[in-house]
Amino acid sequence: MDRLKTQIDFLVKIEEMKRIYRQSIFEDKGDWRRENDAEHSWHICMYALVLEEYAPKGTDISKCIKMLLIHDLVEIYAGDTYLYDEQANSNKRQREEKAADKLYSVLGKQGDDLRKLWLEFDEGKTIEAQFANACDRLQPILLNYRSKGEKWKENSIHISQVIEKGNWKTRDIDERVRRFVFDLLEDCVEKGYLLP
Amino acid sequence: MDRLKTQIDFLVKIEEMKRIYRQSIFEDKGDWRRENDAEHSWHICMYALVLEEYAPKGTDISKCIKMLLIHDLVEIYAGDTYLYDEQANSNKRQREEKAADKLYSVLGKQGDDLRKLWLEFDEGKTIEAQFANACDRLQPILLNYRSKGEKWKENSIHISQVIEKGNWKTRDIDERVRRFVFDLLEDCVEKGYLLP
Repeated sequence: MDRLKTQIDFLVKIEEMKRIYRQSIFEDKGDWRRENDAEHSWHICMYALVLEEYAPKGTDISKCIKMLLIHDLVEIYAGDTYLYDEQANSNKRQREEKAADKLYSVLGKQGDDLRKLWLEFDEGKTIEAQFANACDRLQPILLNYRSKGEKWKENSIHISQVIEKGNWKTRDIDERVRRFVFDLLEDCVEKGYLLP
Repeated sequence: MDRLKTQIDFLVKIEEMKRIYRQSIFEDKGDWRRENDAEHSWHICMYALVLEEYAPKGTDISKCIKMLLIHDLVEIYAGDTYLYDEQANSNKRQREEKAADKLYSVLGKQGDDLRKLWLEFDEGKTIEAQFANACDRLQPILLNYRSKGEKWKENSIHISQVIEKGNWKTRDIDERVRRFVFDLLEDCVEKGYLLP
């Protein structure tokens, strides 16, 4: 029973994800508000599920989904780091490793496995980590598009930054997705959502 | 490209889940607010992931997670139905079947598969549907506990209703989980969160 109670405590603790607000905004109750980590995590899991056919051959989508469910949990202790904030990103890994220790250690062996899965995502080397990362990068572009690039404009983001941070030129992804992203980003520049 | 665009439109459309607010409440920015469907869906996927060892032998947890990711999508067209609202529940299935047609038909064969997965969850016959349902019933109990039963009190909910709606007496679940739920609910009665 002690083990179950520890697991339930963990599940109650991670409710915190509903209180970590990201940069991406969307319309809610006639107003714009920031998306939180719980909403974002659910949404990108749906991206992985629906876009499975564009993943490299042999990709284990269930593993991608598990990665995406947990990929932001470290932010409970490390906070959200804006993709284009170079200073905050310089020590991100260090802060998140420490956060992962604190977060997962309570779960013993199960925690080790979850920590390993997060690390795999973060290192981005396996095809599952690659595809999960693509979903994590694609969804905010769509959100920015819907909000007419408000956050991009606020932070003077250039199209080259979005392409570079998303690794859209070289990442292993179906060419249709790459084309879709480039077309969309060019449309964003044309509409003034992104700087050229 | 048309197919990809339709899929992306679907992924943008289901953002609606972040605007469907449920009865369960939790603390956010020093205030209490309702949890939305996107947050709820993410959270119960985490329940399935962390509590996997309590599922009946042979349960495919990845399938449970996929079910839980999509199980509330029909609410985009059918709205959220409070578990203890008998009148709204009387025609829930009919409303949700219609909603599922509208929602999934745009995705062709892929939509048929997702609709089937939702139906499997809703019918609750397979072990995956059973365990997914258990996660879906367990999480709101924890939320109600944390909010000192505010919503239960508001709706004069009795412990027998929670047990019956959650099917906690007879559902196929590890005995430790059953014991945990009964202990917690009895504690809720003692504390005045639930009616005896």
